[in-house]
Amino acid sequence: MEKVRVGLIGAGRIGRLHAEHLAYRLKNVELVSVSDVYLEGAKRCAEEFGIGKYFKDYREVIGDEGIDAVVICSSTDTHAEIIEAAARAGKHIFCEKPIALDVERIDSALRAVDDAGVKLQIGFNRRFDPNFRRIKSLIESGKIGDPHILRITSRDPEPPPIEYVKVSGGIFLDMTIHDFDMARYLFGEVEEIFATGEVLVDSRIGESGDIDTALVFLKFKNGAIGSIDNSRKAVYGYDQRVEVFGSKGAALASNNLYDNVSLIDEAGNHSAKPLHFFMDRYVESYLNEMQEFINAIMGDFPVPVTGTDGKIPVLMGLAAKKSLSEKRPVKLEL
Amino acid sequence: MEKVRVGLIGAGRIGRLHAEHLAYRLKNVELVSVSDVYLEGAKRCAEEFGIGKYFKDYREVIGDEGIDAVVICSSTDTHAEIIEAAARAGKHIFCEKPIALDVERIDSALRAVDDAGVKLQIGFNRRFDPNFRRIKSLIESGKIGDPHILRITSRDPEPPPIEYVKVSGGIFLDMTIHDFDMARYLFGEVEEIFATGEVLVDSRIGESGDIDTALVFLKFKNGAIGSIDNSRKAVYGYDQRVEVFGSKGAALASNNLYDNVSLIDEAGNHSAKPLHFFMDRYVESYLNEMQEFINAIMGDFPVPVTGTDGKIPVLMGLAAKKSLSEKRPVKLEL
Amino acid sequence: MEKVRVGLIGAGRIGRLHAEHLAYRLKNVELVSVSDVYLEGAKRCAEEFGIGKYFKDYREVIGDEGIDAVVICSSTDTHAEIIEAAARAGKHIFCEKPIALDVERIDSALRAVDDAGVKLQIGFNRRFDPNFRRIKSLIESGKIGDPHILRITSRDPEPPPIEYVKVSGGIFLDMTIHDFDMARYLFGEVEEIFATGEVLVDSRIGESGDIDTALVFLKFKNGAIGSIDNSRKAVYGYDQRVEVFGSKGAALASNNLYDNVSLIDEAGNHSAKPLHFFMDRYVESYLNEMQEFINAIMGDFPVPVTGTDGKIPVLMGLAAKKSLSEKRPVKLEL
Amino acid sequence: MEKVRVGLIGAGRIGRLHAEHLAYRLKNVELVSVSDVYLEGAKRCAEEFGIGKYFKDYREVIGDEGIDAVVICSSTDTHAEIIEAAARAGKHIFCEKPIALDVERIDSALRAVDDAGVKLQIGFNRRFDPNFRRIKSLIESGKIGDPHILRITSRDPEPPPIEYVKVSGGIFLDMTIHDFDMARYLFGEVEEIFATGEVLVDSRIGESGDIDTALVFLKFKNGAIGSIDNSRKAVYGYDQRVEVFGSKGAALASNNLYDNVSLIDEAGNHSAKPLHFFMDRYVESYLNEMQEFINAIMGDFPVPVTGTDGKIPVLMGLAAKKSLSEKRPVKLEL
Repeated sequence: MEKVRVGLIGAGRIGRLHAEHLAYRLKNVELVSVSDVYLEGAKRCAEEFGIGKYFKDYREVIGDEGIDAVVICSSTDTHAEIIEAAARAGKHIFCEKPIALDVERIDSALRAVDDAGVKLQIGFNRRFDPNFRRIKSLIESGKIGDPHILRITSRDPEPPPIEYVKVSGGIFLDMTIHDFDMARYLFGEVEEIFATGEVLVDSRIGESGDIDTALVFLKFKNGAIGSIDNSRKAVYGYDQRVEVFGSKGAALASNNLYDNVSLIDEAGNHSAKPLHFFMDRYVESYLNEMQEFINAIMGDFPVPVTGTDGKIPVLMGLAAKKSLSEKRPVKLEL
Repeated sequence: MEKVRVGLIGAGRIGRLHAEHLAYRLKNVELVSVSDVYLEGAKRCAEEFGIGKYFKDYREVIGDEGIDAVVICSSTDTHAEIIEAAARAGKHIFCEKPIALDVERIDSALRAVDDAGVKLQIGFNRRFDPNFRRIKSLIESGKIGDPHILRITSRDPEPPPIEYVKVSGGIFLDMTIHDFDMARYLFGEVEEIFATGEVLVDSRIGESGDIDTALVFLKFKNGAIGSIDNSRKAVYGYDQRVEVFGSKGAALASNNLYDNVSLIDEAGNHSAKPLHFFMDRYVESYLNEMQEFINAIMGDFPVPVTGTDGKIPVLMGLAAKKSLSEKRPVKLEL
Repeated sequence: MEKVRVGLIGAGRIGRLHAEHLAYRLKNVELVSVSDVYLEGAKRCAEEFGIGKYFKDYREVIGDEGIDAVVICSSTDTHAEIIEAAARAGKHIFCEKPIALDVERIDSALRAVDDAGVKLQIGFNRRFDPNFRRIKSLIESGKIGDPHILRITSRDPEPPPIEYVKVSGGIFLDMTIHDFDMARYLFGEVEEIFATGEVLVDSRIGESGDIDTALVFLKFKNGAIGSIDNSRKAVYGYDQRVEVFGSKGAALASNNLYDNVSLIDEAGNHSAKPLHFFMDRYVESYLNEMQEFINAIMGDFPVPVTGTDGKIPVLMGLAAKKSLSEKRPVKLEL
Repeated sequence: MEKVRVGLIGAGRIGRLHAEHLAYRLKNVELVSVSDVYLEGAKRCAEEFGIGKYFKDYREVIGDEGIDAVVICSSTDTHAEIIEAAARAGKHIFCEKPIALDVERIDSALRAVDDAGVKLQIGFNRRFDPNFRRIKSLIESGKIGDPHILRITSRDPEPPPIEYVKVSGGIFLDMTIHDFDMARYLFGEVEEIFATGEVLVDSRIGESGDIDTALVFLKFKNGAIGSIDNSRKAVYGYDQRVEVFGSKGAALASNNLYDNVSLIDEAGNHSAKPLHFFMDRYVESYLNEMQEFINAIMGDFPVPVTGTDGKIPVLMGLAAKKSLSEKRPVKLEL
């Protein structure tokens, strides 16, 4: 295979990000087509990134014998259906998280992938961030020794629109799901979750049945313990930090800042805030994850984030929801 | 009153620290006498710091009409008894934490203090640390807005002797108690506690019925949430950090390091570790707390850390123990 | 004008960098052709970045009526000649620094540009780096007050090949020239230079008549003073720092690092090194400078780095050479 | 010798600092007497620190057979005379810098010390600062390899009173002298100095014939080069940084701050300023230098800062003055 020919499904914010990367910044790939339920969006995306074909219906992307793989960036409720269709058509699949909010739906999609023997990679991009990769490699090389404590801070610069909150599945399935994936990536499987949360940012979030500030406790199978804290609104920007502590040391990933300049004056020392927008913060991780997907197809390697990796964080989110509502720790059934 | 005349009870490690401060580094105070159940220790302390009298029996310190106040640094199981005796003798009292591990014993000691109308200050020295004071003042000045999330990391450089662990009352009453006090100091009263913990550092600690690694969740009366993580052994030194997050911003206190030098070479950038020994780390807080005690007596001000401030963290520690053993969140009854 | 059509002259390392940016990452531009004296290089560049035409002779690029502007990345000794030819052909010009090592040659090239009325921008990319731009904006907004002291540290990760050193014009015209431009950008014109230097890195550099370690003193017209330190070899990476100090405060730009992770263990705290390769370090500045060049053409704005900005740092480099050889401060004649 | 009995000469700001240390914080020493030309000052100092005797005339300190050593903190113009008198009386001598502003006067004082065979330590306290000691030990252990570049930043928080400036000997002998000592301490002897300077802080300093902003270039005997920048007024506090760069790496000492707290809000990240007052900044170095002086007497070791170490920085200051006035580099004659 000389290059991987890709069709993109969904030309929204994240779809356009992947379109730019696939069109210009990644190797061994050709972006052949794009679809969006909003045809005009597909057309504009095609024009901007020089994509040859655009469609309204994702089935036209999948039906194209000229493509090897699809990148699914449509709305969450369509993921499982498209995965199944793409698998049946023999296409390799990159799908944004989550696969679905419902475990049975996930299972049936994963079965379709298994049956077809195609590759499926889930878009947990943070695993590909240079900071978190470095943390992972420090753990793997034994530099922190046996893992004891994990601490993840993950705070958004501002809440999503209230309409989105209502269909998001709740903070644990929408936002903490990334942290659940990070926890597994770094420390392995979790066996128990205790979740607490409050509505401190916006009362409308509470009225919609969700929370906006959360603290989640994790007990890992390897004996380590961990906590995740989330807020829907950190006024100072996108706060993404991880700390791992073990028998031989600790490793900390601090935030990526706008610049490395500090001003010192009579009032003190002033330096830059974290990058505000997730696409700026994680641009390298988006590039890396997609390149590895392409490489996995080219070289017939296993993908770095599997369907199971897509499913377990959903189970963790559901357990967290249960813990919050029942006010008790909940065992995870894997 | 020209100066406060003080008797010291207990000439162990922490007693000698206070002796040096009272003898040489604090204002408006005279260290008159010292006692220790180990008479030779009292004698050596007296010689080193130029203290006029030394005794084996603390009652000789308290019985001295020439003193205004006592500083109690004897073993925990003697605190309540000595507080009561000192109160009856009309002496102001500075007592190292905890007052007792038993709530009734604390209550009777506090009653004695109330009845006598003397001042009682408890040695929660960390409130007087410049870093944590700065955090407190940022909260009070409204710089972080409404408090949302508190994170305390408190890890010792190495576990105490196993014999000490056995009589310590357990990690929550011995070590986390400082963090409970810090939590109250910064965010106010707690209404619910959930505690988890493991034995990851030393199996003998587990055999003695205690844990060495802990994660404690706090729900505050003001709606905020918080977590404390503890380890009995951080190989890199004494790790003492606090982060407060609110509607307008966040404040973080990082560790005090040995020096401000970094070496950069082919292998990376290398800088100093946190101060290892608690007496080095908290020397300013020990000086500050005692000066404020002296000032409170001189000026007849309220003391900055009251008997109730000494009692509530014990209640929190007991609630944490209960939570750990019953595997559920526990309401705090104040 | 809908978009600017550009021809690239020189497909070496820096030419290929601009090719990628012009082809994929910049707006309102089309990269039409590329030339290189080594035809195979031009061809490979054309293939990699989808450029329609490639040539051996730069005159074929310039002779193309279909282009609006040229980007000159050929060897230094060809810059002036190509500038003149492009100007005569009515093309706007972006030229890598330096214009020439000889002042008369620079003057004749600038006259050709003036006569033709085309735009000429010189590739002092560091002005477009987010860190240094932030420093500049802090100065302009008055945050540091009156400028008093400037300190620039600029150290390469390793020396260029000795063959390159021999034709480079010497450290002041090859390497310090960027710092001279930065000094002017931040603090304005210089009136006196004192330069010292040693051969400490590689004796072959000394044998070729150059130095590899330098310290240059600057006296600015506004009364401020400054120093630049250079080394051809910083084993820890590409060290690019600037500090400005004034009556109201100071601002410091520290290095861009590989990641934001620190590992702390018994041996200390370990964090990342500066980015090693100048193309990684300055990728944003290269993007920014070229976008501004394109924008200046599109909107008929003045370019941000003029021909005079290209000439003065050469004068400064020549003054530094004279100072070093005569061991005395040298006035700058502007 | 069981302890060293010390007489203090001069009870001004720095004298009182040493008095407190000698009285309370140092080992193996007894502070026996104090003198000050202002008798009331000597008396108050004696009372505050429990010193047995106080005098107006330093000769009464020196004439006391009960003392082993003197600590000279009187005004600079009296140093040489008192050193000579103390040496003749067979007392060991600690003398604040500088010995004198005149080389012949220094030489005669050093001869008196040599003739008497007593110890003389000069108060270049910064050598004993933990940061700079760490830098020194990194150099000595070979961690930075061969020394190439030294950079010292030394800026005061505010200028001294103009009356003091007039008798100070000028910035190079009053302020830069500490940096000259630091340069020698870290990189060894200097062979050439080039100094520039301006009046940018206070025009009255210029009217008194001095400058307030300086940049000094150093060429070391070992081939390394270095620069020192000074300002009489850094609005953000006492700025004391050192950087050493060599063939294997670099080491940087950054400032000591008021606390380790950062506040991050919508406006950015805000952290503490450097300690403002030199006595706060250098308290440990003052303690360390005096303890080493006491230890040198007790154990009959060489002192860590000799009379020659006191003389050479004066020669460097005089060379810098000459360079500034003659606008050329000046060789140092050692």
